[in-house]
Amino acid sequence: MSKLRVHNYSLSLDGFGAGRQQDLQHPLGLSGDRLHHWIFDTAYGRTMVGLGEGTTGIDHQMLLAGDENIGATIMGRNMFTPYRGPWDASAAAIQWRGWWGPMPPYHHDVIVLTHFPRPALHLAGGTTFHFITDGPEAALHAATNAAAGKDIRLGGGAAALRDFLTMGLIDTIHLAMVPLLLGSGERIFDVDWVLAGYRCAASTTGEGATHLHFVRA
Amino acid sequence: MSKLRVHNYSLSLDGFGAGRQQDLQHPLGLSGDRLHHWIFDTAYGRTMVGLGEGTTGIDHQMLLAGDENIGATIMGRNMFTPYRGPWDASAAAIQWRGWWGPMPPYHHDVIVLTHFPRPALHLAGGTTFHFITDGPEAALHAATNAAAGKDIRLGGGAAALRDFLTMGLIDTIHLAMVPLLLGSGERIFDVDWVLAGYRCAASTTGEGATHLHFVRA
Repeated sequence: MSKLRVHNYSLSLDGFGAGRQQDLQHPLGLSGDRLHHWIFDTAYGRTMVGLGEGTTGIDHQMLLAGDENIGATIMGRNMFTPYRGPWDASAAAIQWRGWWGPMPPYHHDVIVLTHFPRPALHLAGGTTFHFITDGPEAALHAATNAAAGKDIRLGGGAAALRDFLTMGLIDTIHLAMVPLLLGSGERIFDVDWVLAGYRCAASTTGEGATHLHFVRA
Repeated sequence: MSKLRVHNYSLSLDGFGAGRQQDLQHPLGLSGDRLHHWIFDTAYGRTMVGLGEGTTGIDHQMLLAGDENIGATIMGRNMFTPYRGPWDASAAAIQWRGWWGPMPPYHHDVIVLTHFPRPALHLAGGTTFHFITDGPEAALHAATNAAAGKDIRLGGGAAALRDFLTMGLIDTIHLAMVPLLLGSGERIFDVDWVLAGYRCAASTTGEGATHLHFVRA
């Protein structure tokens, strides 16, 4: 059975997965980029952006573990693009092909949950973005088929995480809590995680983030 | 100048300082007692309740530091009593003298912020509860006089913390984040801590809690 897993989802102390005002200049909203600084201190993160050596401690190991046995990814549409509304709302919106350049780091099928239908987008390196409009369960069904027995990773953003969580569809959740405040933005705890059936099973202190692992009770 | 300090304020991962339904049987609300288990593993906590030896590591040291140079305490009325409304709403409400028994652990003046006037309450060991109805600034003024040059500690609860924080009256805040979820209850991050002027200055991992220190930016 494929599991649906969340990994290395960065979070501020005050519970924000992104700052407010997400746009082209601020993929994670105002000050939201600070949520990811811990990643770019690691060998994992520095290799990803071609910057060479980095740390290889707990944070690095957590990032590696997040990729293990993953055969497909699900993300909310707001994680795929800074543009809102129909795909053809502007020339820039039409041309958008994701944040990850011509060869995205997924190398498998990525299911994008959206209200607006769109043909699949094939990019170099084996990544295909599929756009699913029938809701979380349909996205999970499509991802399960694509994963071919491997697990599925739910990437985010905050709205997708809340939706899948309250529907009880996520098997394990790993948050990376970063010691900073954002003050405002996208909250993940304004839905009741206990009512949804989750408990914290482990907490591990990394170099730049505290890694919190949640399972269904 | 006396500083207003918060120390060892226990918090769940999802941002709750207490569970819902605080009452006589549940001083910290449903499941809220779990927020304080880390305290009762330490020598500080076990001595307080007459249980003998405990740990003397980071958590213990943080608890000791919270008492250093404190000359007065401020708390919200909901932290003083499980009863709501006027002080004489019931026989039990009238007889209530705080959660801390005949000799409370404060040994100084405690300013209780309330909407309902009441004469001061003198208990053994040098603790006097004063009931102030003129708001946070008046409470701080009374506490400053009582502290006689020492600092003042803001004990809680969540509503008092939010009120003093948004008014910018708190100098330093130390939260003890406990690796558990409460799901619902009293939130402290539904006011904007960044807008109020605070930033996280340090994070230290203890045995049972992660200690987060905030200062005014």
